[in-house]
Amino acid sequence: MSFNFAFDITANDPHSAARCGWFHTPHGIIPTPVFAPVGTQATVKTLAPHELETLGADLILANAYHLYLRPGAERIARLGGLHCFMGWEHPILTDSGGFQVFSLAHMRHVDDDGVTFRSHIDGSEQRFTPELVIETQENLGADIIMCLDECAVPLDRDYLGQALRRTHLWAERCRAAQQRDDQALFGILQGGVFPDLRQESARFLSALDFPGYAIGGLSVGETKEQMYTTLEATTPELPADRPRYLMGVGTPEDVLESVARGVDIFDCVLPTRVARNGALLTSEGRMNIRNARYADDPSPVEPDCACYTCQHFSRAYLRHLFKAQEILGLRLATLHNLHFMLRFMEQVRATIADGRFMQFKEEFLACYRVPDQRARFARDTAQRADHTDAG
Amino acid sequence: MSFNFAFDITANDPHSAARCGWFHTPHGIIPTPVFAPVGTQATVKTLAPHELETLGADLILANAYHLYLRPGAERIARLGGLHCFMGWEHPILTDSGGFQVFSLAHMRHVDDDGVTFRSHIDGSEQRFTPELVIETQENLGADIIMCLDECAVPLDRDYLGQALRRTHLWAERCRAAQQRDDQALFGILQGGVFPDLRQESARFLSALDFPGYAIGGLSVGETKEQMYTTLEATTPELPADRPRYLMGVGTPEDVLESVARGVDIFDCVLPTRVARNGALLTSEGRMNIRNARYADDPSPVEPDCACYTCQHFSRAYLRHLFKAQEILGLRLATLHNLHFMLRFMEQVRATIADGRFMQFKEEFLACYRVPDQRARFARDTAQRADHTDAG
Repeated sequence: MSFNFAFDITANDPHSAARCGWFHTPHGIIPTPVFAPVGTQATVKTLAPHELETLGADLILANAYHLYLRPGAERIARLGGLHCFMGWEHPILTDSGGFQVFSLAHMRHVDDDGVTFRSHIDGSEQRFTPELVIETQENLGADIIMCLDECAVPLDRDYLGQALRRTHLWAERCRAAQQRDDQALFGILQGGVFPDLRQESARFLSALDFPGYAIGGLSVGETKEQMYTTLEATTPELPADRPRYLMGVGTPEDVLESVARGVDIFDCVLPTRVARNGALLTSEGRMNIRNARYADDPSPVEPDCACYTCQHFSRAYLRHLFKAQEILGLRLATLHNLHFMLRFMEQVRATIADGRFMQFKEEFLACYRVPDQRARFARDTAQRADHTDAG
Repeated sequence: MSFNFAFDITANDPHSAARCGWFHTPHGIIPTPVFAPVGTQATVKTLAPHELETLGADLILANAYHLYLRPGAERIARLGGLHCFMGWEHPILTDSGGFQVFSLAHMRHVDDDGVTFRSHIDGSEQRFTPELVIETQENLGADIIMCLDECAVPLDRDYLGQALRRTHLWAERCRAAQQRDDQALFGILQGGVFPDLRQESARFLSALDFPGYAIGGLSVGETKEQMYTTLEATTPELPADRPRYLMGVGTPEDVLESVARGVDIFDCVLPTRVARNGALLTSEGRMNIRNARYADDPSPVEPDCACYTCQHFSRAYLRHLFKAQEILGLRLATLHNLHFMLRFMEQVRATIADGRFMQFKEEFLACYRVPDQRARFARDTAQRADHTDAG
């Protein structure tokens, strides 16, 4: 008997498209809106599974591309599947590897049948087809899996049109290739920043009746306004009773704007990656703990924070760990940032439930200093190839 | 009222010089023989304090040289002292920095007054005197502190004689400089592998009535036989009612041989450093987890091990983490190796207490494959400058 991936919507915000609910999966019920920490190589960098449990992570992401190349998806299947392999008995989402093939790897050739690329690890030639990508994800055994898609540069309309046609063709083949009935296969919308392409994609994929829909190809170089406008044109075209997953997005400000536009699921390397650079998330924005001003500061990162880091260590000690290049610094910063994001998502859900979401959004953004847009754009563009947390 | 650093010897092995006891310090009573994990820069690499507690660490070591240079001992004092700074409320031992000055740093000049050197961090010129080294360690606030000593090459008798004279002169000055009465200041014996120099050192320092004695300048290039012979000539010359600390030594085989010769305290980077290279300690010797033979191995590192790593993860997953250069691999290997060493020390204490120590020693060594001596010697010599765990 196949698993029933029910999505129970428990509240709709009266002032926006935000909603909260429960998405049922074989390894647990995921409260939405949800933020998934990124565990590219079958580990959320620096953390052990019991720490993710204590933090209250409801869903984590792993990358099929990376695990296919190393240690191999068949090997993970022989070892009992991804949950068993990495010691995480709660929901997991794997992406299809499409994004990585079109960014991280050296893409060699794409045609209607599939895509040929060189491994970023050893340069070996590899080929992904829709069928192989489903087989790989069935070997891994995540609760939520993704179709193979072609992730194109968001501003080139001609190329986007071709990529969209192929993405839809592959979505049909992925749907047909799926054999396991205990994994929710999501279709992935493409179409860049063009509302008509996005709407076409939404309609095409909706007809295939997926248990959930992912919005791909955003946060890859377009402006924030373009991203938000695109979302506004897209989510109304998707079935209201299926979860919507905005791939690779997850700064606090982007989460608020996207939740308001009807998104339910997020993943992002931001909290874990910036942690390893010494940037700590606080209600006022990012704190660079390497700054000399913290050398003698006995306060915790955030005085009212309940995370292990803030309960036990000073800014001065954290700064010392970063200056001395100690691994414990990376761990403590990662713990704090994920605690921040996961508590933030709790507030998002709670305020949707009682109709205060737009007020919460306004109050949060009034306090939270968003990093400079231009600097951010330059950085994001430079790091475009690295939405995954493998570095 | 000054703290009473009592050393209660609770058992003497009838078949060797091994003994077990309790050493009282302001932050707790240390059971001996004890192994101190190394936390050079105010962190035992990769681990959080609560993990060290769970592992049952009774004492950890931090390096005064490193902390003096970064973040500064006065700064740590302002932040409440080392225990508070690093979140470890149990006993701490700091070395004097002597060993590091004569190895890690670029030593410039040594005279009877002190030693001038260049920082290994920024090349700045620095000078240690016995008085400064005591002041530094009083600022850090460890439970056990060390005199400044001159650590000379163990086979050059002429230089050793001069270094010994200076070490004794500095020991007297350290004793006189000490102002805090809640820290146990240990004298450090030198004299290389020459029994008469070691005996001279033991007699000289014993007359100064230290609450404990450290044996320095071993495991720095001499053979194991030379080390053991030197210990045999040295420990009988030390007061029986004071703890004896063999600095920088702590492979399982060296611990057994040294405990049998009357040593009570050990510290060593071995379990933590080899962990980060993927070498896991087992009852049969070191297991190189990077080996391809573990790629599909679903067993834990040691089937009967109770550590977090062995309870939750397979050899295959650990190997994957090391191949993928994931920090969690370093953590899990460190946890396992410290668990191994600390359980091993429990067995050492238990078997001394019931008269079975020499039998335990024989049984352990019959099973434990000691790494090849020549390879080890070459490696140790190459790494001579790095007894501390800063890299």
